[in-house]
Amino acid sequence: MKARVFVTLKAGVLDPQGKAIQHALEGLGFGGVNDVRAGKLIELDLADGTSNADIEAMCQKLLANTVIENYRIDTVS
Amino acid sequence: MKARVFVTLKAGVLDPQGKAIQHALEGLGFGGVNDVRAGKLIELDLADGTSNADIEAMCQKLLANTVIENYRIDTVS
Repeated sequence: MKARVFVTLKAGVLDPQGKAIQHALEGLGFGGVNDVRAGKLIELDLADGTSNADIEAMCQKLLANTVIENYRIDTVS
Repeated sequence: MKARVFVTLKAGVLDPQGKAIQHALEGLGFGGVNDVRAGKLIELDLADGTSNADIEAMCQKLLANTVIENYRIDTVS
């Protein structure tokens, strides 16, 4: 089975990478870019039968820093 | 409007970051992790009426390196 984990910075946490992307887009002439936030996408290829609780534990222990990041799990069987 | 851009490495491109995550998960005792690929998630807050072609151009010019990366655009109005 496949799982996708989306890791994003919590609201209020400064995102210099996102700001750099925003300024670069403006520099390239793209208007109307109000905000950019950069996050991570982690694609996991897991043994069938891996439980959601296991994936949740992976996020808590390694994939996300839950002090400053949120995560969302999408499983694709 | 909001748009999410998912940037992933093309198949066949080595992904040392993904491999590091895979080994770390194994080291933490998570079994059955066959493969991990790391990608980027870029959340854009755009002016209403920004066309899909504009977002596509942003990906082509800045957000993705199309030699080694694929991208997918999700728009949320």
